[in-house]
Amino acid sequence: MSGEQELGITESKEHSPGEWYAEVVQKAGLADYAPMGGFIVTRPRGYAIWERIQNNLDGWFKDTGVQNAYFPLFIPESYLEKEKDVVEGFDPEVAWVTHGGHNELEERLAVRPTSESIIAPFMAQWTRSHRDLPMRLNQWCSVVRWEATETKPFFRTKEFLWQEGHTAHADEDGAWEETMTRLDQYARLYEEVMAMPPLKGRKPPHDKFPGAHTTTTIETLMPDGKTVQAATSHYLGTSFGEAFDITYADADEEENTAHTTSWGLSWRAMGALIMTHSDDQGLVLPPALAPDQVVVVPIWQEDNKDEVIDYAADLAAELDEADVRVELDDREHRNPGFKYNEHELHGVPLRVEIGPHEVEDGEATLVHRPDGETETVDRDGIADTVTDHLDTVHAKLYASAEETLEGEIREAESREEILGTIGQHGGYVKCGWCGDEDCEEPIKDAIAAEIVMVPLDRDEEPIHEDCAICGEDAEETAYFAKSY
Amino acid sequence: MSGEQELGITESKEHSPGEWYAEVVQKAGLADYAPMGGFIVTRPRGYAIWERIQNNLDGWFKDTGVQNAYFPLFIPESYLEKEKDVVEGFDPEVAWVTHGGHNELEERLAVRPTSESIIAPFMAQWTRSHRDLPMRLNQWCSVVRWEATETKPFFRTKEFLWQEGHTAHADEDGAWEETMTRLDQYARLYEEVMAMPPLKGRKPPHDKFPGAHTTTTIETLMPDGKTVQAATSHYLGTSFGEAFDITYADADEEENTAHTTSWGLSWRAMGALIMTHSDDQGLVLPPALAPDQVVVVPIWQEDNKDEVIDYAADLAAELDEADVRVELDDREHRNPGFKYNEHELHGVPLRVEIGPHEVEDGEATLVHRPDGETETVDRDGIADTVTDHLDTVHAKLYASAEETLEGEIREAESREEILGTIGQHGGYVKCGWCGDEDCEEPIKDAIAAEIVMVPLDRDEEPIHEDCAICGEDAEETAYFAKSY
Repeated sequence: MSGEQELGITESKEHSPGEWYAEVVQKAGLADYAPMGGFIVTRPRGYAIWERIQNNLDGWFKDTGVQNAYFPLFIPESYLEKEKDVVEGFDPEVAWVTHGGHNELEERLAVRPTSESIIAPFMAQWTRSHRDLPMRLNQWCSVVRWEATETKPFFRTKEFLWQEGHTAHADEDGAWEETMTRLDQYARLYEEVMAMPPLKGRKPPHDKFPGAHTTTTIETLMPDGKTVQAATSHYLGTSFGEAFDITYADADEEENTAHTTSWGLSWRAMGALIMTHSDDQGLVLPPALAPDQVVVVPIWQEDNKDEVIDYAADLAAELDEADVRVELDDREHRNPGFKYNEHELHGVPLRVEIGPHEVEDGEATLVHRPDGETETVDRDGIADTVTDHLDTVHAKLYASAEETLEGEIREAESREEILGTIGQHGGYVKCGWCGDEDCEEPIKDAIAAEIVMVPLDRDEEPIHEDCAICGEDAEETAYFAKSY
Repeated sequence: MSGEQELGITESKEHSPGEWYAEVVQKAGLADYAPMGGFIVTRPRGYAIWERIQNNLDGWFKDTGVQNAYFPLFIPESYLEKEKDVVEGFDPEVAWVTHGGHNELEERLAVRPTSESIIAPFMAQWTRSHRDLPMRLNQWCSVVRWEATETKPFFRTKEFLWQEGHTAHADEDGAWEETMTRLDQYARLYEEVMAMPPLKGRKPPHDKFPGAHTTTTIETLMPDGKTVQAATSHYLGTSFGEAFDITYADADEEENTAHTTSWGLSWRAMGALIMTHSDDQGLVLPPALAPDQVVVVPIWQEDNKDEVIDYAADLAAELDEADVRVELDDREHRNPGFKYNEHELHGVPLRVEIGPHEVEDGEATLVHRPDGETETVDRDGIADTVTDHLDTVHAKLYASAEETLEGEIREAESREEILGTIGQHGGYVKCGWCGDEDCEEPIKDAIAAEIVMVPLDRDEEPIHEDCAICGEDAEETAYFAKSY
């Protein structure tokens, strides 16, 4: 154990968000830096959060017809080249395996940066008849992209964990419905599990996934005013179907090209989660994702030790019985203050304090992690009461994030106004946009903000008649923001 | 869809077990061969089996104090070299990443062949006090070993899926108990989930995991008389603790070296499963692992179609309600015979046939996949009846595998007898053994059989007084067998 003075968070979320984030990740025991730059070690408390994200999404995927599969870690260079040939703009930086044992390989193998180029040929092979469609495959795996940027755990790492879904459908309607089903499931994850309000939108055409017809996105706003692309769902049209020959015989034995989709969510979701809710005391977690939802801390003197600990243990057992994830912290060598700090650092959503007064009065004192709100409640019916309080903690986290978001979507009608508003406040700025990528340039060059989304509905009227940058007719509403 | 004549299994399990195995894996939709030799694509029906193996083991691991984590896919060459320095005999053939993007790396990175060398340094960092112990970490991941052997899906592939557990303990007792806890959980998996009788034993000293004090093993016998090392659990003593400086301060603030263990099970378990139970009609699965446990097949004529299908659908819904994994196969374009063959190929443990007679009499006809046993039962209480029959199917599979095993453990008292017995029957041959690796050589050279295990209990008296090979005093009982 390091010295106790080093246990707490020393950086300020408001004044040094980058350092604060790195400190929370390490001191809350979520991850450590690996010896190779760009890689991290995900520790049990971090991995447990990822497992709960997985379990929620995976259940919804399976309920809606998705099957998990596993494709190879490596992709032959010729397969990646084929994708480059057919998909303009696809040129990922990858890690290359050149030797196996002591021998040089005849063909280099890429460590998968994404798996379209190996999955699509197999989908083509498995798709014969319209009865084979829709085909919905997903894999949970790690991918590697050799980008030389500063490491930020869960946000920017060369290796990251994600799921990638790949589906094929008989027609555009089926594929578009699939695209939206997954986008909605990602939005649900953010709302119901992660206590974060998501924005749903489309990426502008110049920022689509290479080869996609439409890239839809979930954007979430961080407290520092930057947006995070928090999940993505692509309608790929027939471009991959044509390139990889994913065709099927319809009911009349006519050959048709399948429409495909792909969609993914990575552990960047965890990064956004940590950054949104946590504070200068450490990690804050929504109850649905917390490894321990409740910690029961008995506070005793020598003369009442047994009865206080027994009472606390009995209460913890009752919560456990009711499927609350609860820990009884009856460590002898730590005082209550130390325990409070440690569990706050670790993000336990609810603390239950049991002292001699609680025992005497048949009560329990509940303390909410996000805001320290304290309430003394009856011991009777404690499981229901605690469940209600956990719901309240979730609601508080959501409301707080929603409040941040609501104030942070502003409008602008000129280039200067966009620059000034984002420069001063951060957040999103909505404006009319002609649809030309060139009109993004001056904003990007000046303050590194870009068009992070446009409305999902293509027919939605732009908020202003003119493009805020060039003054031509506006075609859409653009959302400018700085972005992680 | 390929031509229907190609749907069924054409190879014979008895006469061409290798070809038969490959055909079952492909035609039952478990896996396909990837474009790179040594790699496979695990299809949904195969991956679903692996997920159920994972879920069972992972639940038991967590119930007994194990936490999941995730360590990097890559290990720097210098880390592997360090393990080679400290662990004699450790020299895995690995896949080397030499380039990231367009640049050559300063240090080559190995794609993890196993993770001791990256996990141990972090365990050292996280282990300060006796209160940090026991530390039990596990990861589910893929590993790559560049062995140039013929590909056999799930048995021999360059990349394979597994779990690797790594734990540290204050003393030998704790670490040894851990080693046995995991071995027992693997044995439980084979017995209760996979319907296979496991043998528990130790590897002979010359076949231990490099650096291990004791390597324990689960061996399972295949129908062709060869054994499979089906899981392994190592007590590592203090060798890794010393090499990687995994030390802790005890209650008296004295520094001590931790005792460590590691243990793993790979998708080779799936290979052993497929090979044990399946037959010339295709895959056979125990109900605990089958993606679909029951298929309900309605058999109708035009004049009774609606009532037969309604009755079947209602029955399927009742099974679903009772958490039986059930599929209703009411496809119009396939006849019942085709459906029977297909579901037998896919290994659905129980078929429920519903024809007009069953509807009229308020009954259902159940057919067991392993042996075709057929019973007509009351429609009332169908969920309980089906659950009982699924238990019976499991018991039949287990009994059949146990019967094979029991006849296949023979004794021998001389080199000639060992060679003759294994040559004629396969299976295991028990004999007295002096403990010298040299006495394994003549058997290995002659028929490629080796000592696959010795009894777990070191104090067990050898079955014969003399070593069957050299005639010196026997120290242990050796189990010779050919091995996958």
